[in-house]
Amino acid sequence: MIPAPYLLYLGRSNDAVGIKTSRGLAEFRPDDCVGEFRHDDGPLTLGLPRLTMAEGAAAGAKTLVLGIANSGGKMGADLIADAVAALEAGMNVAAGLHQRLRDVPEIASLAEERGLSLFDVRDPPANLPVGNGNPRAGHRLLTVGTDCSVGKMYTTIALTRAIQARGIPADFRATGQTGILIAGDGVPVDAVVADFISGAIEQLAPARNDNGWDVIEGQGSLFHPSFAGVSTGLLHGAQAEALVMCHDPMREHMRGIPGRALPDLAECLEHNLRVARLTSPDVRAVGICLNTSAMDRDDARKLCDTIAEQLGLPCTDPIAFGTDTIVDALLAG
Amino acid sequence: MIPAPYLLYLGRSNDAVGIKTSRGLAEFRPDDCVGEFRHDDGPLTLGLPRLTMAEGAAAGAKTLVLGIANSGGKMGADLIADAVAALEAGMNVAAGLHQRLRDVPEIASLAEERGLSLFDVRDPPANLPVGNGNPRAGHRLLTVGTDCSVGKMYTTIALTRAIQARGIPADFRATGQTGILIAGDGVPVDAVVADFISGAIEQLAPARNDNGWDVIEGQGSLFHPSFAGVSTGLLHGAQAEALVMCHDPMREHMRGIPGRALPDLAECLEHNLRVARLTSPDVRAVGICLNTSAMDRDDARKLCDTIAEQLGLPCTDPIAFGTDTIVDALLAG
Repeated sequence: MIPAPYLLYLGRSNDAVGIKTSRGLAEFRPDDCVGEFRHDDGPLTLGLPRLTMAEGAAAGAKTLVLGIANSGGKMGADLIADAVAALEAGMNVAAGLHQRLRDVPEIASLAEERGLSLFDVRDPPANLPVGNGNPRAGHRLLTVGTDCSVGKMYTTIALTRAIQARGIPADFRATGQTGILIAGDGVPVDAVVADFISGAIEQLAPARNDNGWDVIEGQGSLFHPSFAGVSTGLLHGAQAEALVMCHDPMREHMRGIPGRALPDLAECLEHNLRVARLTSPDVRAVGICLNTSAMDRDDARKLCDTIAEQLGLPCTDPIAFGTDTIVDALLAG
Repeated sequence: MIPAPYLLYLGRSNDAVGIKTSRGLAEFRPDDCVGEFRHDDGPLTLGLPRLTMAEGAAAGAKTLVLGIANSGGKMGADLIADAVAALEAGMNVAAGLHQRLRDVPEIASLAEERGLSLFDVRDPPANLPVGNGNPRAGHRLLTVGTDCSVGKMYTTIALTRAIQARGIPADFRATGQTGILIAGDGVPVDAVVADFISGAIEQLAPARNDNGWDVIEGQGSLFHPSFAGVSTGLLHGAQAEALVMCHDPMREHMRGIPGRALPDLAECLEHNLRVARLTSPDVRAVGICLNTSAMDRDDARKLCDTIAEQLGLPCTDPIAFGTDTIVDALLAG
């Protein structure tokens, strides 16, 4: 386990979506976050106390969490210098980028010298099995998306808590760096070797017989040309009986690919169901979740109603309006 | 490059499909193969001289190729003992399994002691890019399949040669261990980190402007619950203008998964085209290739004719009947 509490890194990121790991920890593990670190020219804040590395360590932070994500997952000179500064201040460092902290010589040697730990959250487990798609017991729900970073993790956690609130066992199954840091467990599915994508998810959400739910965090999108392979293997490994589709109505183009339009909602949902049927022939869609955080509340409500009518499914913003309508549909099934 | 000539390993494999790497080398690089190594209880042969490790080395073999594939790609005690014996006989060892030769301590230490080399063909290249799906110049054809190991590599090489025979530049782009050993180059796409599947193929088959073709070897199947993520990323990265679908009419169930039926041919083709359209909106199917090696020749011809009529596309066995009908359809497009 990664020693808490945490100092959350924002650096000089100007990408509100890219800081999702730091934001997720602030949102879902607020008691474990002492503050945020950002440079003078970093425009983003989580509303936490702004602390230097030394102040963070003095405030009790045991670990700097490099909670930013970027396509490709490489560390620039900036990030390396800040990780070094955190170690010099006496903190461990955790990151979820594809490039490993331990593979950066200056970070690795300094950590060893100071007796501090490096946590590479995106390290996949060893000895993953190849998936087989054979039917297994248990209830599973998977979140899917029109794009990357559209709220799948928030939705998955919200649904897990809402099912638990009905007195039904439910477990959040994390598949990305942020979810893994929040849950303290999971599999970084985009970092596994390609042959083992579905097998990793079969292992993450094995057969269960307690009538409870595994609520599995989706990744990417079948319509994202960078990452659809991950999404496909996740659908097959999850063998979900229920899908919830997530969408950001303010997204202007597929993340990282200017000019590429988002898919039509109905087409996206239908294609996800079709791919899912390979291992879960009776899969059904139970709801749509929107991230309306950038919208006026009335407009958000109206948009949810419009989409609900168009698709014939409950549609909500899980943060603004809760997930009760979706859980009703799920449990009525 | 891996020093030739080769001694081809069969061991005691009783899986005619599993020895496809050894068979592929025997077929496509016959001049580089001095013989085959199999145990007394190994039922399979490639028709090459059966040699012990010592006889292979004496016959000039520079490298033992562990040319067998198994789901999951781990080495058993058998394989390790035979690799050790090859090193003791003075040969290098090459393999394409997920488990690396260099990660087996007794193999690694003996190779070092004897000054011999280990070649792990499934090592993906470093610094792969994330795919983007942006349109790029050039003609590309991709082979896809109803299942794993249905003849995609044979078909891809046959098509490459047939296009070259028309005086048009064409390059075989290998994506699996066998193809890479034959071509001496390529990317082991099932071994790359999941986020980089499509990016690996974009790098393997970059833009070209000579009016020639990149003929890309497909992997797995959209209908295989273990590996469909790889096939999806390959379709998106290939950005192919033409697909050829491969099928083994004798296959009783999806490879490695007893009880799971193969997809309907028309449904499989349509689904591949649909997934491909994300990055290649005008993609078209140009033919079907069957592996009829286990069938009577007349029956094989009749089956090709029947499928050609059903799907409205040329259908052939590339080894038995050539690929002219498909290349005609390709170049007429």
